[in-house]
Amino acid sequence: MKILGLDPSLSSTGWGVIEVENNRIRYVADGVIKTNTSLDLASRLSKLYQGVCEVIERYQPDEAAIEIVFVNNNPFSSMKLGQARGAVILAPAQAGIPVAEYEPNQIKKAVVGVGHAEKNQVETMVKVLLPGAKPVNNDASDALAIAICHNNFRHSRNINQK
Amino acid sequence: MKILGLDPSLSSTGWGVIEVENNRIRYVADGVIKTNTSLDLASRLSKLYQGVCEVIERYQPDEAAIEIVFVNNNPFSSMKLGQARGAVILAPAQAGIPVAEYEPNQIKKAVVGVGHAEKNQVETMVKVLLPGAKPVNNDASDALAIAICHNNFRHSRNINQK
Repeated sequence: MKILGLDPSLSSTGWGVIEVENNRIRYVADGVIKTNTSLDLASRLSKLYQGVCEVIERYQPDEAAIEIVFVNNNPFSSMKLGQARGAVILAPAQAGIPVAEYEPNQIKKAVVGVGHAEKNQVETMVKVLLPGAKPVNNDASDALAIAICHNNFRHSRNINQK
Repeated sequence: MKILGLDPSLSSTGWGVIEVENNRIRYVADGVIKTNTSLDLASRLSKLYQGVCEVIERYQPDEAAIEIVFVNNNPFSSMKLGQARGAVILAPAQAGIPVAEYEPNQIKKAVVGVGHAEKNQVETMVKVLLPGAKPVNNDASDALAIAICHNNFRHSRNINQK
C-alpha cells in the first residue's frame, strides 16, 4: 500500500511517497513542484496540478494525505495558499484516490512525538523513520511527514477495529 | 468569440457564457454548479472542476474571466474560497483557455456604471445588457457580469491598439 503526502504552496509544493508493508514503512520518493512567480495564476495552478498528476501516474499511490493549514493574520496569503491547495487536492481526487486531511500538530506529533516541534526536528525524524530518504528540501520532508502521519492514523484505526 | 464568466464558491459556483460579434454581446447560457456540504473537500472540489469542464466542452469559450476576491476578516473563509477558486480556474487553464481576473469594483463599474453597486442592481443591468437572459440566481448573474466586464476590457484594449 502506497501513501502520497502533499505539502501545498503556490511557489513550491512538496510531495513524498512511502510504502507500507506488514506495518512497516519504507521510503519510495520525494520531490518539489516549483512554479515561476512571473507566470499568471492559472498557469501556476496548472503546473501544480499536472505535477501532482505525474507523481500519481508514476508511483500509483493508493491513498493521499494533506496538511490542514490556516493562515491566521493574512487573508491574502490564505487565499493564495487555498488556491494552490485546491489545485493540488484535485489531482488525487480526479484519480479516485481518497485524500485525508491532518492538522499541523497531528503531523508533528506523529513524526516527532510532540505537537509543537520545529521544522528541522521534523526533517531529522523523517530521515530516522525512513532510512535512505534524503528529502530535497523542507517542503518534501514535510510531505513525507504527512504520509507517515496518515499511516499512523490508518494503523490505529485498524487496531481499534480488532 | 465566446467568453466564460466564473463566480466561484465552494457551495455554489456561478457560470455564464456570452458571445461577442461585431462589438455586440449576446446571451448564450448560464448556470450554477452546487456541491453538497456533506461531501468531503476533495469530492466537492472535483465536482466544481468537472462541472466547469463540462460547461467548457459544451459551449467552447475562447476566453474566461473570474472575479478577484479578498475575504478580509476571516482567513478560514479565504482558505475555503481560495480552494474553490483554484479548482474552478484550473478547468479553463487545463483546456488552454486564457483566464483574466477582475476586481469586484471593476466588474460592477462595467455593468452598472459605478463601482459600489448592489447585487440586485448587477442582476437588473445584466438582464438589460443581455436580452433573453434569465440568470438562475445571483451567482449566475454575477458570472455573466464578469463575462461582460471582460468584454469591455478586451474592447478598450482593441481601441487603444488602433
